[in-house]
Amino acid sequence: MTRLQQQIRFILEADKLKQVFRRTLLTDASRLENAAEHSWQLAIMAMVLAEHYYPMGLDLPCVLQMLLIHDLVEIDAGDVHFCDTAQRRKQMEKEAKAADRLFNLLPHDQAQIFFGLWQEFENQESEEAIFAHILDRLQPLLHGYVTEGRTWRENGVTRHHLLSIVESMKESAPEIHDHAAALIADAVGKGFLPK
Amino acid sequence: MTRLQQQIRFILEADKLKQVFRRTLLTDASRLENAAEHSWQLAIMAMVLAEHYYPMGLDLPCVLQMLLIHDLVEIDAGDVHFCDTAQRRKQMEKEAKAADRLFNLLPHDQAQIFFGLWQEFENQESEEAIFAHILDRLQPLLHGYVTEGRTWRENGVTRHHLLSIVESMKESAPEIHDHAAALIADAVGKGFLPK
Repeated sequence: MTRLQQQIRFILEADKLKQVFRRTLLTDASRLENAAEHSWQLAIMAMVLAEHYYPMGLDLPCVLQMLLIHDLVEIDAGDVHFCDTAQRRKQMEKEAKAADRLFNLLPHDQAQIFFGLWQEFENQESEEAIFAHILDRLQPLLHGYVTEGRTWRENGVTRHHLLSIVESMKESAPEIHDHAAALIADAVGKGFLPK
Repeated sequence: MTRLQQQIRFILEADKLKQVFRRTLLTDASRLENAAEHSWQLAIMAMVLAEHYYPMGLDLPCVLQMLLIHDLVEIDAGDVHFCDTAQRRKQMEKEAKAADRLFNLLPHDQAQIFFGLWQEFENQESEEAIFAHILDRLQPLLHGYVTEGRTWRENGVTRHHLLSIVESMKESAPEIHDHAAALIADAVGKGFLPK
């Protein structure tokens, strides 16, 4: 198999991420979003919101690449809700196995790059990875709010869960933190989320 | 409205691209793909295939950003098939109007950046834009082949159409061109495409 054939095999395999569904609704609540279109939206968010991340010298292209590939492992491992702590532990093993299979469809040098980006994201090893995580937490919060908390109620998400997530934004992205905290308070006030 | 509120309004509006359907099937032929997940896949392709683009010094981050935003205008203007030449002319006006509305949801400086990226892509003004177009043409060809040409037949796509598209890859991305040309020949041989 030529290098190009290997790369195209990977690209066609990546297509399967369009069928991995998350617990977040589209803004019009018509259906759950899939992990491919979610990754796209996070990359758009990085382009637009990078200025709100305080640590200087953020490498935006690195953030984009990390966000584009961060959910690929879900092709094999599926999506696990952030509240499901027991499941999340098992998930780590499944995702490591998935990364091994999927990234190794690529030529070796590219497999190493993809694996490195994914690991950097997972372990929050850099400012870029921390910012990418902030966006990955902010997006379902924005969608949860505009869809009046339907999937929060379905998945037993509490105000406490959301506040603990938002807490991690406080130091490095204070405007985003304040916006998110205000949304949560408003969601409680409107009955989208239990007190 | 604060700058952050404007940016979030744009991010939520961008979500609508997940409901704009294209004439390309997912690789398992279960449904048509939408323009948001398509944009994501093109960005992944850029990460993987950039080495096959010959002009030196390609700015990959620029390619990524262009691909991420290139279809946003379809939120208002819809998707038009590449074979529908009459429609494509009217489409240009619709897309310009859409760019004006959508990008201006952002703060002015960011609206300018998004508008510039979109225009660069549309007018194929740079090596980055030309490479982005090559990927935008290659992806439906790959999916068309693995789904045995179903949407080609449904949309009256001919071998001639596809060869004219692939021709534009010859000079700057010869390996990609040769791979695509071989796929087309094979598709004709297998009856996925009329001779």
